[in-house]
Amino acid sequence: MKFCSNCGESVVIKIPAGDTRERAVCDTCDIVHYQNPRIVAGVLPTWGDQVLLCRRAIEPRRGYWTLPAGFLENGETVAEGAARETMEEANARLQALTLYSVFSLPHLSQVYMFYRAELADLDFSSGEESLEVALFNEPDIPWEELAFPTITQTLQQFFTDRKSATFTVFDTDLHYKRR
Amino acid sequence: MKFCSNCGESVVIKIPAGDTRERAVCDTCDIVHYQNPRIVAGVLPTWGDQVLLCRRAIEPRRGYWTLPAGFLENGETVAEGAARETMEEANARLQALTLYSVFSLPHLSQVYMFYRAELADLDFSSGEESLEVALFNEPDIPWEELAFPTITQTLQQFFTDRKSATFTVFDTDLHYKRR
Repeated sequence: MKFCSNCGESVVIKIPAGDTRERAVCDTCDIVHYQNPRIVAGVLPTWGDQVLLCRRAIEPRRGYWTLPAGFLENGETVAEGAARETMEEANARLQALTLYSVFSLPHLSQVYMFYRAELADLDFSSGEESLEVALFNEPDIPWEELAFPTITQTLQQFFTDRKSATFTVFDTDLHYKRR
Repeated sequence: MKFCSNCGESVVIKIPAGDTRERAVCDTCDIVHYQNPRIVAGVLPTWGDQVLLCRRAIEPRRGYWTLPAGFLENGETVAEGAARETMEEANARLQALTLYSVFSLPHLSQVYMFYRAELADLDFSSGEESLEVALFNEPDIPWEELAFPTITQTLQQFFTDRKSATFTVFDTDLHYKRR
């Protein structure tokens, strides 16, 4: 941030009074422009024993398989955002959304939140951001072609938890370099 | 947002190509300025049967009791942010942080995330944002003087769960008007 989004004047990078971190401050408007982490809301959609995955049509990781997920929008609940992303990427409707995994990715200033949910029906198809959408049984999951570590870990945990029919929310930190 | 934070020129409010929502767009820089919900990270700190609360020294809800909580910062995990807020507001150190409650507040574009945690010791005191910090037994909780519905619900759930010694993460939506 170089300019104040309220008045267009240059901002100053400094630690405001009573604060401990450098911020972009507009001395004209007397406004501190905070920047905060963003939430990525996603879903692990199931149909019986199968899991729905989408093959990405966009960068990053075009061509790799993912769970439907994307940035939460203002005015949405996390579950609403997760359901919207599933509609956008897979034209799929869900029922019974339950929070399942939370990942802090501090190097990206992102927090991923995945829900488990059942597909309402089999009427799904590729959205604009997907090359392909398909249901997979556990032995057929393309583990080497998954797009992100959050996807891999959520699926691994799901298949482990499913064996014991005990699903609890897991909260994990992932520290890795930007690709 | 009226001006581009990158170049200082006026932004245009429009729906970018391939998008479905109005955004602030800079046609000079060809940048879309997204605005997204923020995370409030907090803690329910315990010491034996007691719970630590802070009386707010700042608006909103100055004088009311709260759990330590505040906006997550870039570069932090959610648990790190929750622990930092506890240090800032109560000069208290924690151990064994476990995710406990998630609240979507879509009217405020905020997501609250509270952890349960044990105080590491009894060496706590009021931080700059607190008038007072104290431990409460359940019968002494000042229910009518709690600052926010997220605080009330997290404490109610905690005392309910504690009776059965079964704590599971709960994920709730709160729809209410801005005060």
